[in-house]
Amino acid sequence: MKAKLAARTNGVDVARMTETIQAVKAAPELGNFQFRLQNRWIGCGENQSQVLPFAAGGKEIPHKTELTLSADEPEILLGADNAANPVEHLLHALASCVTTSMVYHAAARGIAVEQVESTLEGDLDLRGFLDLSPAVRKGYQNIRLKLRIKADVSDEQLRELGSLGPMFSPVYDSITRGVHVAVSAERLK
Amino acid sequence: MKAKLAARTNGVDVARMTETIQAVKAAPELGNFQFRLQNRWIGCGENQSQVLPFAAGGKEIPHKTELTLSADEPEILLGADNAANPVEHLLHALASCVTTSMVYHAAARGIAVEQVESTLEGDLDLRGFLDLSPAVRKGYQNIRLKLRIKADVSDEQLRELGSLGPMFSPVYDSITRGVHVAVSAERLK
Repeated sequence: MKAKLAARTNGVDVARMTETIQAVKAAPELGNFQFRLQNRWIGCGENQSQVLPFAAGGKEIPHKTELTLSADEPEILLGADNAANPVEHLLHALASCVTTSMVYHAAARGIAVEQVESTLEGDLDLRGFLDLSPAVRKGYQNIRLKLRIKADVSDEQLRELGSLGPMFSPVYDSITRGVHVAVSAERLK
Repeated sequence: MKAKLAARTNGVDVARMTETIQAVKAAPELGNFQFRLQNRWIGCGENQSQVLPFAAGGKEIPHKTELTLSADEPEILLGADNAANPVEHLLHALASCVTTSMVYHAAARGIAVEQVESTLEGDLDLRGFLDLSPAVRKGYQNIRLKLRIKADVSDEQLRELGSLGPMFSPVYDSITRGVHVAVSAERLK
């Protein structure tokens, strides 16, 4: 028990992380992941996603429990405000990924992190969505992410910690560099 | 009551949508939105976001209820699998936004939609996150979004419906075209 606890930094099982790195290094196809979900419209601005099993290194892996994610729009955007809206979910995806990427990579470097908080703001001009001006983009114009990190480290190491999320986060990379999304539509009978 | 119901298409209050469009056209600054949230690390791959009040046209608007979003990693990624992981949240943000954008813009065109479902898949090579190959990106390499739409429309209109989400969705635009994310880090005392 004691040995097991000692092998954890930031709650991350560093020995297993090292094993994973070695395994993927030896057999790169083990790094192939495919994440999936299914979404269903409920009405107006409300819809719900079921997270599906994901593929990892050729294996199908179900989640431990059923994971349901909801979305709605606030009243000013004509919804019932029963859930966070899609652009707020995007901020959550970013915040959670930057945080986890930082604490995992800090663990790999042996840096203990005590607390992490972040505040995110995203600017969006509704003229884009409403098609009122072709010059205004539909999506976020800017996002600001402010990290607050508690760790017994030097100022230099704190700056290093702050850089780990943007350096390694899959969602940060996806959002800042863009991802191709192939959309197809068919008739539901 | 009857008149009110009649003004709704896809559950969307089209009269209010038209009012919003006219108001933002007359005073573009009303289109300025800022969405916000605060995230807190719990441990290992787990963290939680509180959705904060948002700004809309200079006003601060709180959500009707407290909205909390959770994230975790599955066991194979060293987490406890207590919630969807960040890259799954990104797919939910995309699915929900494309769906809502489609039904709102369909409503504006007077097209009644009966059902919408979608399935999303995102390919991710873990060698990016694990820093095993500089040529492999950290984020999604591709995302596929398959829409299934039930509506009493021609095949041509069905194709038009399928194009509305990608055409107007703020999350689709953010993810496909990329957004600048400014990150700062400070010490939490």
